[in-house]
Order: sequence, then C-alpha cells, then structure tokens
Amino acid sequence: MQFELNSEYLNQLKTAIVEQNDVFLKSQLSELYAVDIALILNQLDLEESIYLYDQIDEELSSDVLLEMEDEKREALLATFSTKEIAEQLDNMDSDDAADVINELPEEIQEEVLSQIEDIEQASDIADLMSFEEGTAGSLMAKELVSVHAHETVSACIDEIRRQTESVDVLYAVYVVDEHEKLIGMLSLKKLIISHPLAKIEEIFDGDVISVKTSASSEEVADLIRKYDLVVLPVIDQLGRLVGRITVDDVVDVMREEAEKDIQLMSGITDDVDSNDSLWRLSRARIPWLLVGMCGGIVGSRIIGSYEDQIQIRPEMAFFIPLIGATGGNVGVQSSAIIVQGLANNTLIADKIAPKLLKELSVGLINGVICSSLILGYNLLINESWALAGTVSVALFTVILCASFLGTFVPLMMNRFKINPALATGPFVTTLNDIIGISIYFLVGRILYGIL
Amino acid sequence: MQFELNSEYLNQLKTAIVEQNDVFLKSQLSELYAVDIALILNQLDLEESIYLYDQIDEELSSDVLLEMEDEKREALLATFSTKEIAEQLDNMDSDDAADVINELPEEIQEEVLSQIEDIEQASDIADLMSFEEGTAGSLMAKELVSVHAHETVSACIDEIRRQTESVDVLYAVYVVDEHEKLIGMLSLKKLIISHPLAKIEEIFDGDVISVKTSASSEEVADLIRKYDLVVLPVIDQLGRLVGRITVDDVVDVMREEAEKDIQLMSGITDDVDSNDSLWRLSRARIPWLLVGMCGGIVGSRIIGSYEDQIQIRPEMAFFIPLIGATGGNVGVQSSAIIVQGLANNTLIADKIAPKLLKELSVGLINGVICSSLILGYNLLINESWALAGTVSVALFTVILCASFLGTFVPLMMNRFKINPALATGPFVTTLNDIIGISIYFLVGRILYGIL
Repeated sequence: MQFELNSEYLNQLKTAIVEQNDVFLKSQLSELYAVDIALILNQLDLEESIYLYDQIDEELSSDVLLEMEDEKREALLATFSTKEIAEQLDNMDSDDAADVINELPEEIQEEVLSQIEDIEQASDIADLMSFEEGTAGSLMAKELVSVHAHETVSACIDEIRRQTESVDVLYAVYVVDEHEKLIGMLSLKKLIISHPLAKIEEIFDGDVISVKTSASSEEVADLIRKYDLVVLPVIDQLGRLVGRITVDDVVDVMREEAEKDIQLMSGITDDVDSNDSLWRLSRARIPWLLVGMCGGIVGSRIIGSYEDQIQIRPEMAFFIPLIGATGGNVGVQSSAIIVQGLANNTLIADKIAPKLLKELSVGLINGVICSSLILGYNLLINESWALAGTVSVALFTVILCASFLGTFVPLMMNRFKINPALATGPFVTTLNDIIGISIYFLVGRILYGIL
Repeated sequence: MQFELNSEYLNQLKTAIVEQNDVFLKSQLSELYAVDIALILNQLDLEESIYLYDQIDEELSSDVLLEMEDEKREALLATFSTKEIAEQLDNMDSDDAADVINELPEEIQEEVLSQIEDIEQASDIADLMSFEEGTAGSLMAKELVSVHAHETVSACIDEIRRQTESVDVLYAVYVVDEHEKLIGMLSLKKLIISHPLAKIEEIFDGDVISVKTSASSEEVADLIRKYDLVVLPVIDQLGRLVGRITVDDVVDVMREEAEKDIQLMSGITDDVDSNDSLWRLSRARIPWLLVGMCGGIVGSRIIGSYEDQIQIRPEMAFFIPLIGATGGNVGVQSSAIIVQGLANNTLIADKIAPKLLKELSVGLINGVICSSLILGYNLLINESWALAGTVSVALFTVILCASFLGTFVPLMMNRFKINPALATGPFVTTLNDIIGISIYFLVGRILYGIL
C-alpha cells in the first residue's frame, strides 16, 4: 500500500524524462501523493526535476514543493519567475507559504509578495514572516474559524461555509470575546450534534490550552504531545487569537529534535543527511574529530610522562584500550539516561545530588562486576599480581568517575541551557579517555611500588 | 502556562498526604490535567499514590491511570479489586482498555473482562486483546462512526448523535459498502457544510489511506507522519473497516522509537529510565560493557604480540588512545548518517555501493586533514620521522576503515532486518578500536623497519 522508491523505478522515470514520454510520466504521477512525488524529485538532478515538475497536476504542485528537501526546493524555485512563485504561494497554507518565502533570496521576497493575487493571503504571509524562527509564531497558520460567544450554531456553520475556501482542514472552531480574546473552543462534533439555534456560549468548552506567539517550538511540541492535541491555538501578548498550529507540523518538529539529538550524540555539528555534498558532510564532522584528536594528544602526553615505566613494564600498555573504551562506554550510558529523562520530563531536574548518588551506585555495581571479571582473566592468563591489580583497581575507579561525569555534565549543561545531548557524544568520551589513562598509570605507579 | 513538577511542590503534596489534608489535595488536583496528575503519581511511593488517587475526580481517574508509567500503574492496579479495575476500563477508549488489561496478571484478566458493565465495550476489548503487540490491530480503537454510501447527510448526523457517548473525539466519518468494506471517508467539515439531504455517495472522498490490522506500528507511524494524517482507518484481511488509529497514539510510538534508537546507540539493552531500580539500571548496561571489555581484551592481546617493539620504542604506546578514539568517532559519525537516512527514507537502501563510495570520499577528506595535522604536531615536538609517519599513516587508514565499517555495518543490518541503530553504539566503537590498534602496530612495524 505504501509507496517505496527503488532505483529501478527511478531509472524508469529518468528514461521517460530523457525520452520526453509525457504520457507515461503523467500516468505515473497521477497515481502518487504529493509527498511521494517529492521523494522522487529529491533524487533527480535539477534539469530532470524541472521537466518532471511541469508534468505534475496543478492542484498538487504546491504540495509537492512543500514536501521537497529544502535545498532541492530552493534550487527548483530559483528557476521560477517571481510571478510563478507567487502563484504557488497562493495555493499554500499561510504558514507554509511564509516558510518558503523566507528561504528565498531577500531581494526578491518583496516582489514575490506583491505578486500574490489574494491580498489577504499576502498580508497573512507578511505577518508570519516577522516571527523569529523556532517560535510558535513562525509555526502557526492564520487560517482558522473563530466565532463570538453570543452567536448561534447555525451562524457558526454559515461562517465555516464562508471560510471553506481558505481553511483546508478544520478540527475545531475557536470562541473569542468582543476584543478577539480567546475564551474557548468548540469541537466540530459538538457543533454537529447541537441544535442549530443553540447559542455558542451555552455549548462551548472554556478550558482551552493555548500558547503565546513567543513560545519556543519545543514548548509547542511538548504541549501537543503531552495533552494529545490535534490543533493548538496561538495568542498574542494581549490574549487575542492570532493563529493555530496543527499536530502534523509538530510531528515534523519532533522528528527534527530527535535527529538533532542523535547528531549531537554522534559528534556531527551540522544538520546534514547522506544526500548532502561531500564538502558539507566532511565539514560537519571535522570539529568533533579535532576535539577527539586533541584529547588523544593530551592522552599521549600523559602516557609520555610514564615512558620509563612502560620501558620496564611494557605490559602496562596492553590495557590502555580497555580502560579507555570502558570509561567511554560507561559515560555514554550514564549521560544517555539523563538526557532521555530530561527530554521526557520523567526526571525532576532541580535536585542533582540524588541522581548523582544513584548513578554512582549503578557505577559501583557495574564496576565491581567488570573489575572482578578482568581480575579473574588476568590471573588466569598468569599476568603478575601488580598488573592484574592495577588494571582492576583502575577500571573500577574509571567506571565510578565516568558514571559521575556522565551524570553531572548533562545536568549542568541543562542548567546552563545547553542541549545536554551534546554531552552524550564525543565530549564525554574524550574527557573519560583522558581521565581513564591518568588514573590507570597513576594506579600502576602506586601498585607496582607496593606489590 | 505549562505545569512543571518541582521538588518543592512535590514535598507540599507529600506533607498534605501524611496530614490527610484532603481539602488542599482536592483543590490542587482540580487545577491539573490528567497527565500532570500522573507525573506526580509517578514520583510517589505506592502508599502515597493510593491515597492521592482516591482524591482524584472520578471523571479524570481513568485518564490519570492511562498516563502513568507502566510499572507504577501496574503496582497501583494490583491494590484494586477486579470490580474497581473493570469500572476504570469501562471509561477508557477500547484500545487503551485493552492495553491496560493486557498488563494485568493473566489469571484475573477474564474476571475483570466479565465485570465490565457495558457489554459492547467488553467485547471490543476482548477483540483487541487478540492482536499481537506492535501491530496496527493492537494500536487501533474500535470507537468510530461509519455510514453507508446511500445514506443522507442528516442520517449521518443522527448516527453521530447516537454514538456520541462512546466516541470521545471525532475527526472523520468513514463510508462503507454493504459488506462493511471501507470505500471512503468524509471530513466533519464537509459534513457540516453539505446540505442535510445530500447523499453521502455524492460528497464523500473515495481516496482514503488505510492499513491492515497486521501492519507494524512503524508502518503506521510512517504513514501518519508522511501523509500528515490525524486519524488512520484500519481494515481486516477482507477490507472491512474494523478500527481507527489516532495521531496521538502514534506520537507516542514515534517517541518510543526515537528513545529505543538512542538507547541502542548508547549501549543500553533495556527500556529503562532514571526512576528505575538500581538493579534494572545496572543490568541494562552490563551486556555492552562486557562486549566493550572483550574488545579491550582482544586489543590487549594484539598489543601484547608487539611487546618487544614497545620495549624498544615505548613512544609507540603514546598514541594508542588517539588512534582508538578517532576510529571510534569516525565510525559513529558515519553510521549515524546512515541510520538517520534509513529512518527518514531520504536514502534509497537498495544500492549500497554509491553510499560506500561517498562515505569513503568523506573519510578521505577528513583523513587527509587529520593525519596532516597530527604529522605537523609530531614533527613540531621533535618526534622521530618513524613515529610521526606511523601515527599519520595509521590514522589515515583507520579513518578510511572506520568510514567503511560505519556505513557498511548499518546497511547490512538493515538488510537483515536488524535495527541499524545498534551499529551506531558500542558495537562499531569496539570493532573500530580493535581494527585501529591492529593497523597502528602493523604500520609501526613496517615503517620502523624502513625509516
């Protein structure tokens, strides 16, 4: 049932484009949804895209544009006249149109705006363009149906009929007072089952969750997710209803948030995907590789200061990777638990001490297990007591340290409003690597002195 | 506007529970939504939960139950009689009720089911319990409004009125043929603006996306996300309409999926959060720590086989951490890009070679940058040409290898239907650690022989 793009099908389409086989292309496109056509366009080069885009049914073309990857869409739009862009924007919801126009080069934005035929749509778009990215204002659409509390159900239905052109999908009607302040909502179901002459004020629900235009998109996503909303009204500083955000926009925000976290955890600094250019992909990775390398250099200086010891006891070098890797793994595990708890609100962030204590206890348990096992292994293969002891004591200490840092660093980052997912990545690994090596050689010097 | 739980407020509530200050508790609870009350209950111990739960308004109590963490809910329900559980289930949507009853001990499930007063609800729940977890059937609810194509708008509205009790939230009406097969849908907006005597068959939308009961929850989430749906009808093998899945359920599925990926990436084997018991938290982490330790032991054997070389040239040991860490970082970065592309469908998975080539090119660029920098550093601090050359050549090779493995492993895992996020975790780090060390010492033996 669900469309899946494979390279065979893609090649068929490419051939049809080269052969200008419009009949085939049109018949294929008519079977597909906008989002599927966009998937195809994302995989084509610009020339092919332009050709295929021309074959798309006019009704779908603006939707296809919206579903394309940003860079591909920008490239395609750059081949359009301002008039053509304006026509596409006219068919979009105001929020989507504002997003698209914000991506255009600044010098043509005004010209495009002036060429939009529907004056109300143009003014809505201009309003929305002024909101800062990442706020509720930038996410909302202006298309909504609002009624006054003193009106009747049948007047409300007439209003819906009047607005049916501009409001594509409708889930609820908002109720406002004489100053346009939001005072409640009315579900379509309630509207349908109520008597036509019933007054809105008698049937509406005064308990409505809303956000201010200045709220962050994370806040919006949290509200929608937490309260299982389908649509969320947006109000200005005076409490007046100015727009609405639908759940599908927030699903995208949620996905982007999750992706950003995974990228931070993986040491990727920029929002890239595998279709991006070689240069962008390389550049997004270099910063954390360099941080990791600096950590490696610090590590080399630390080990270097124990050069004489290694010369006498080269076996000390054998377990450097084990100490480093275990420290890194423990740190990542601890910080992942904290980051997840913060994201879910299952963790009350204002008390740090109990969390540290708990993570340290987990570290204690796992530290005892791991260091006993490695002690057993080392004695089994007849390593000296000095080495076996060093490795086990160091491993235990490293696991405790890494548990502490893995918990403490993300909690502190969160307190200073830095995304704590950053701590689950190369940062904590590098830190633990350095600390692990220091502990290992220090313990080695002490124990080899005693045993 | 949004409720946030802090420890001060929690302590106030706990004190009120001890003092049995019901007036205060009830006044606080009346201000809160079900999900917020659940957040509080999650933080209380069982005794406190039982007391607070009794103070909750009856209308909200089943919703609160649903929003609680699974373990906390199970513990609370264990203190209920089967009759009390049945009453709560009667107030839930059929899908939620089925989830809750599935969590109960098997020996009381039947008894609870038989005590549900609403026979239709009991039969719906029994139907839903038979679907396997993780399928569309297990996600769907039976509450929906369906009409036949030959009926009129006003008959349809009467039907909605009749079903208004059982169907809490309504977004669309489904249209079925005489065999109950799904043939289309009708938005509430369309219903509102259409003439009461219009026939459904004249106004309904025949282009409706649906899933079979056997579809996986990932498939359901993909469809809802991709096609921006609010509700998705579910059909049986014969195409008959049997239920519907709403976007809020899928938002939860999406969050769980993202969490699962992050846990896999972080080397945590079980679905845990920071409120879980020490033992569960420790057990969830031990497996990958042990894998990492085995990797470390393999590493120690490899280094051990170069013992004589280290004794002569202890400086070889200095850069073991740098090589290991960089290999790990590159591997994680590469696999994160692939995992993300697979999750987003921005990547066509059926052709592996071009992706490998691209990742190798990125590796080439970053490898040249990193190994040049480390060469410069080593010559600057007057290390020998042999060591400087060894580190740079090994680093370059390791970066290429890690890019290859980081791309290849998740793609292969995906092909064999293993969650590729597993590859972005300790697995790929451990593998790259071992390979990195082998390359480093091998290159060292060769270059020290030549230079």
